[in-house]
Amino acid sequence: MGIKVHGHPLSPAARRVLLCLAEKNLDYEFVLVDLSTGQHKKEPFISINPFGQVPGFEDGDLTLFESRAITKYIAHAYADKGTPLLVADPKKMAIIGQWLEVEAQKFDAAGQALSFEILIKPMKGMATDESVVDKLQAQLSAVLDIYEARLSKSKYLGGEEYSLADLHHIPIISNLFKTKVKPLFDARPHVSAWCSDLLARPAWLKVTGAA
Amino acid sequence: MGIKVHGHPLSPAARRVLLCLAEKNLDYEFVLVDLSTGQHKKEPFISINPFGQVPGFEDGDLTLFESRAITKYIAHAYADKGTPLLVADPKKMAIIGQWLEVEAQKFDAAGQALSFEILIKPMKGMATDESVVDKLQAQLSAVLDIYEARLSKSKYLGGEEYSLADLHHIPIISNLFKTKVKPLFDARPHVSAWCSDLLARPAWLKVTGAA
Repeated sequence: MGIKVHGHPLSPAARRVLLCLAEKNLDYEFVLVDLSTGQHKKEPFISINPFGQVPGFEDGDLTLFESRAITKYIAHAYADKGTPLLVADPKKMAIIGQWLEVEAQKFDAAGQALSFEILIKPMKGMATDESVVDKLQAQLSAVLDIYEARLSKSKYLGGEEYSLADLHHIPIISNLFKTKVKPLFDARPHVSAWCSDLLARPAWLKVTGAA
Repeated sequence: MGIKVHGHPLSPAARRVLLCLAEKNLDYEFVLVDLSTGQHKKEPFISINPFGQVPGFEDGDLTLFESRAITKYIAHAYADKGTPLLVADPKKMAIIGQWLEVEAQKFDAAGQALSFEILIKPMKGMATDESVVDKLQAQLSAVLDIYEARLSKSKYLGGEEYSLADLHHIPIISNLFKTKVKPLFDARPHVSAWCSDLLARPAWLKVTGAA
């Protein structure tokens, strides 16, 4: 029984879950899903996630997929452990919830696609499409302009405290910081300070093996 | 004070919020945002949603955007009113949460884009791109295969009870049922029964003006 994460250690979605577990100081078993041999598209993994994407998650008799559903479960079920990531007050939670949706619908749409074009494609021997990169950079810039305005008014996206809404961004920000897209973050002072703060979190250093 | 929804009555995202309010029997003021004159891209609307998309929402001193964040707020803050849309048990809620993510990440990616290509583009005098439609139909079919398997095991996506995870689908299903894509739903018996059930909900008939 206990917690199991099925995934690949470099998958941003799997890292989102590992980061959440690290913030909560929870122990878990990591089950490697070898993406290079297509294990994520075969049994037994597709019995956990029929969409064939990592991560998968188990906690006793509960089986889940979709990284953001898993982190929300961990944050609720283990509310009293480690770093608080959500709040009970419905109005304060609604603001966190709004930025959780912005990450999933707006930031990730540009950020994950950029990470794929610039980082993952070359790793797989595929050519980066520079016209796609230009379009996605413009899309990400527009999102970061809105983040800059928001972060000039509150320290974190959901308010004055770090929350799941910030956490969900970390794996993709970390990837993009290794690329030519980093200046888009650096050029916006509040976004830049927010990123530095997030990437220095002990839980993230633990996930990346730097701590 | 009280609840205000800023939007357009035909926007699927605005309808998602109106449907949630109807399920909860909550009164609200509807503030029309005229998309044809670009009111959603100007003040005062962009002070509610800097991304310039309907709906916007107010409840007393709380201002929100992102339809799925708004419905989650309504479902939590008004848990004791009307139809229950979420559950308190963390494991049962996690399953609902998983299908909430599947709707947002998988179903909507294909469904909303199809609705745009087949329904909205012709309304705006733009040509439907049939190659895009073919690709999106294949994408939606793959998602509906997974829904068929799920709905053969439980009456609703989140379990035996209707929840927010089902509700979020209704505006796009309603749009697609008016198009040549409807047979994709009809061909899958459990999906078809689920859609009939959802589209017959009194709250939805109220939103569409059919009740």
